[in-house]
Amino acid sequence: MTISLAATPFDYRFDPPRTALVIIDMQRDFIEPGGFGESLGNDVTRLQRIVPTVRRVLEVWRAAGGLVVHTREAHAPDLSDCPPAKRTRGNPRLRIGDAGPMGRILVAGEPGNDIVPGLEPRGDELLIDKPGKGAFHATDLHAQLQQRGITHLVFMGVTTEVCVQTSMREANDRGYECLLVEDATESYFPEFKAATLAMVTAQGAIVGWTAPAAALIESLSR
Amino acid sequence: MTISLAATPFDYRFDPPRTALVIIDMQRDFIEPGGFGESLGNDVTRLQRIVPTVRRVLEVWRAAGGLVVHTREAHAPDLSDCPPAKRTRGNPRLRIGDAGPMGRILVAGEPGNDIVPGLEPRGDELLIDKPGKGAFHATDLHAQLQQRGITHLVFMGVTTEVCVQTSMREANDRGYECLLVEDATESYFPEFKAATLAMVTAQGAIVGWTAPAAALIESLSR
Repeated sequence: MTISLAATPFDYRFDPPRTALVIIDMQRDFIEPGGFGESLGNDVTRLQRIVPTVRRVLEVWRAAGGLVVHTREAHAPDLSDCPPAKRTRGNPRLRIGDAGPMGRILVAGEPGNDIVPGLEPRGDELLIDKPGKGAFHATDLHAQLQQRGITHLVFMGVTTEVCVQTSMREANDRGYECLLVEDATESYFPEFKAATLAMVTAQGAIVGWTAPAAALIESLSR
Repeated sequence: MTISLAATPFDYRFDPPRTALVIIDMQRDFIEPGGFGESLGNDVTRLQRIVPTVRRVLEVWRAAGGLVVHTREAHAPDLSDCPPAKRTRGNPRLRIGDAGPMGRILVAGEPGNDIVPGLEPRGDELLIDKPGKGAFHATDLHAQLQQRGITHLVFMGVTTEVCVQTSMREANDRGYECLLVEDATESYFPEFKAATLAMVTAQGAIVGWTAPAAALIESLSR
């Protein structure tokens, strides 16, 4: 059964068994006070505020039996999957692999690298550790989605203009029809979030669609 | 010899033999009056105005002996490399493969798909036809660059927030140090260009650097 919901720039239509919910990088180090993101001077309360909305959509999606994908920006402990340019650029207070407030920065298995409480992946869901901003680069995400016949992706997560936008652009090039849930994504910079929503929906949904969580939840509850 | 130039958010340093100039999609259908872009209602004079600047940088780069890469958004005539989502989305006046004012839209070999006069690739330069917005998706660009020991990329071309940004984000994930030439890139939407320049340089050059053409030319002329 195809579902249609009011979206920008026009209605978004999807068939739930062929659609995955993709939750980008809802990790403690980016979202919790005392984590890596806050240590860089970012106001993490902006990101914290979307957690209940992400959770509500996740619960409705699970109840509808839809596929869920969680991603984490995570490097191997030996940093073998971290390009030198990513580690050495600029003069940050903390580099990837350094000891941060919640363990080694962006290293898999460290406390800060985990998904925040309330959004933990279930055992039957996909969990993708990605070395880049984009969820398709150097991961098996595309193959996993193709194996399951997925053609549509609904995105949530952080941050809007970095990992979410990059992943959505990669997905669009690979032929997926993508929806971004407007109030279930956030940035440390509100102007970048607004610009990203405008860019992806411009020129007839050149990258994809956006809609509020309430519209998506309502469409799944009919 | 490593060259350093004043850039945003801090100096950009590159070694010319390990750096490629990447010119994104300077194609007649996007830039010339009477082409596909204008037929969609876009003001192509914005894009036309950067052609002399792109050419000046290209000439200086060639004189310095640097590698040049040109890309085109181009599909095979049978559209076998065009995802259905890309062709069928929305309700445009012209779809990919339809007969447009300068030949079939986004099809390789058609007049409108060519690079604009003055920026034609030379025989010793790389010409990459890409089916997506990103220059790395479904092309051999990364392999070609790796074979030549390229670690740094200098981007020019159109449009800033679509194909240029997508390609720069892909390049960044692959470990390249990327510079975008501010006045050698343009968008149909000036606010999207400004937002993209701000986004890519934020958070300590999270995607890369930007600088004006004059600074790059000066750095190569020392």
